[in-house]
Amino acid sequence: MDKKIIGIDLGGTTVKFAILTAQGDVQQKWSIPTNILDDGTHIVPDIIASINHHMELYGLTKDDFLGIGMGTPGSVDRHLGTVIGAYNLNWKTTQAIKEAIESKTGIPFAIDNDANVAALGEQWKGAGENNPDVVFVTLGTGVGGGVIMNGQLLHGVAGAAGEIGHITVDPDGFECTCGKRGCLETVSSATGVVRVARHLSEEFAGDSELKKQLDNGESITSKDVFVAAEAGDLFANMVVDKVCYYLGLAIGNIGNTLNPSSIVLGGGVSAAGEFLRSRVEKNFLQFVFPQVGESTKIKLAELGNDAGVIGAASLAMKIEK
Amino acid sequence: MDKKIIGIDLGGTTVKFAILTAQGDVQQKWSIPTNILDDGTHIVPDIIASINHHMELYGLTKDDFLGIGMGTPGSVDRHLGTVIGAYNLNWKTTQAIKEAIESKTGIPFAIDNDANVAALGEQWKGAGENNPDVVFVTLGTGVGGGVIMNGQLLHGVAGAAGEIGHITVDPDGFECTCGKRGCLETVSSATGVVRVARHLSEEFAGDSELKKQLDNGESITSKDVFVAAEAGDLFANMVVDKVCYYLGLAIGNIGNTLNPSSIVLGGGVSAAGEFLRSRVEKNFLQFVFPQVGESTKIKLAELGNDAGVIGAASLAMKIEK
Repeated sequence: MDKKIIGIDLGGTTVKFAILTAQGDVQQKWSIPTNILDDGTHIVPDIIASINHHMELYGLTKDDFLGIGMGTPGSVDRHLGTVIGAYNLNWKTTQAIKEAIESKTGIPFAIDNDANVAALGEQWKGAGENNPDVVFVTLGTGVGGGVIMNGQLLHGVAGAAGEIGHITVDPDGFECTCGKRGCLETVSSATGVVRVARHLSEEFAGDSELKKQLDNGESITSKDVFVAAEAGDLFANMVVDKVCYYLGLAIGNIGNTLNPSSIVLGGGVSAAGEFLRSRVEKNFLQFVFPQVGESTKIKLAELGNDAGVIGAASLAMKIEK
Repeated sequence: MDKKIIGIDLGGTTVKFAILTAQGDVQQKWSIPTNILDDGTHIVPDIIASINHHMELYGLTKDDFLGIGMGTPGSVDRHLGTVIGAYNLNWKTTQAIKEAIESKTGIPFAIDNDANVAALGEQWKGAGENNPDVVFVTLGTGVGGGVIMNGQLLHGVAGAAGEIGHITVDPDGFECTCGKRGCLETVSSATGVVRVARHLSEEFAGDSELKKQLDNGESITSKDVFVAAEAGDLFANMVVDKVCYYLGLAIGNIGNTLNPSSIVLGGGVSAAGEFLRSRVEKNFLQFVFPQVGESTKIKLAELGNDAGVIGAASLAMKIEK
């Protein structure tokens, strides 16, 4: 029998698990709540107990597995298998995760950060169609991403490769939490879309339900903007056009630098689907070298929440023995 | 004795050759004129004759070599070892270079385009200090580049990775030969620097020798601009500031995407040296995520004309047997 792999997607509220074949087909999925009490000291023991419990449940032993891969928030040392500074897990000090999991399961372990792992998932089994050159952009509360070229995740010299949310799209733009101005994240994250709406509402004089809501002091979401735009609200369309212009500029320049086979849009904002994708693509084509426009495709993510466990599991395929 | 490698840098006027150790130390260098007559049909036979002649001269046989690598203009098929559309060589039809060179020298052969090969040279033996993640930007007649990550040259899905000259730095900027607007090349190539000078001269009212030259209809060069700026000409400094702003923006966003250990500036415009580098770096730091600013260095190319032969030779190290 072919050996299996385990993927773990560690988040601030739940830990998701999956057992996959080496071909990336999910055979079992489950999840447990993340217990962040006591400085997050329960998290790793809970993960180990859950893995061992499920192995027993399915009649599997360590010899049935090639490895375990995990995606995590915080700053990861891939070689040591440690994490530090994952504040939504209350991990303020260095956590020796690889050592704990390998010693208690007997299975080889690999770890990377959550954005990178989701990128690997989409590249392998999602919109990336297992092509070797794929860039993934998550449009969520923030904007993050992962870059896979020649079939390898790129980390850069200090692990900051893929900081796509901090590409400067407007040097005179909004201040960003990172300390600089005009980052893609300030205008295309879920909060960024609302920020653009508030900003543009000052100069929009026509009739718009969305603008009325803003003027009345109601709180709106990124989803409200896209729903209104699809329903024909002129102001909402102005906001979406601006957001897609900045996204097209940023990923256009990624295209000019890397010419991946696809740039995949994921995260909450990408729930706007083809309405978003087609508008981003239109702008992207304005900003790319012709050969890049012909060969690099703009796609929507396909795996949703499963990208994390699938991509994490793929790490297990590359553990050096 | 350790086996050697041969590097060939094919250009429109000369073909440069070098014999190197596998450690990248140049042992012999020579060059021949490029004979582009008769649709460039003499070029490959001339290269073969020159290699065989020099092998004889130094008492070497095919068994003394790991391989031959070559950088060329035009559109390269690395797998087939062919080139098409190198107009400065009069190569309009497909040239089966690998086949010809391997059959007539008995030495394994690899080929890539000239910008990529120069990038490999700087990464291996130049400013890149053999770090695995290095981006090279050539500021010459045009602006090109090469991206090396995880120790591998990136080509992208259609070979258009590294089109750094076509990163959009000003969506409302000058028209580019590629058909779009505001490409880095339009403002930071040798002709781009002069274009920026002409454009800004309309709005500069102060005293400047450089502006007088422009107003008198004299032709100026990129070098003239940098020389005047270093000598304190206010207008020339305005031009240099603008050029370095755009360069800082473009390579800042490369930094945010890839976090290489260094971004190396080469080509004719980079002859302005530290005067250029320090100004580009200042702007770069404005546009990067803090962690990238701390870890990605801006450097000047170190190998000059030798980058091509050295990088080309490095291709020979990676030929699969």
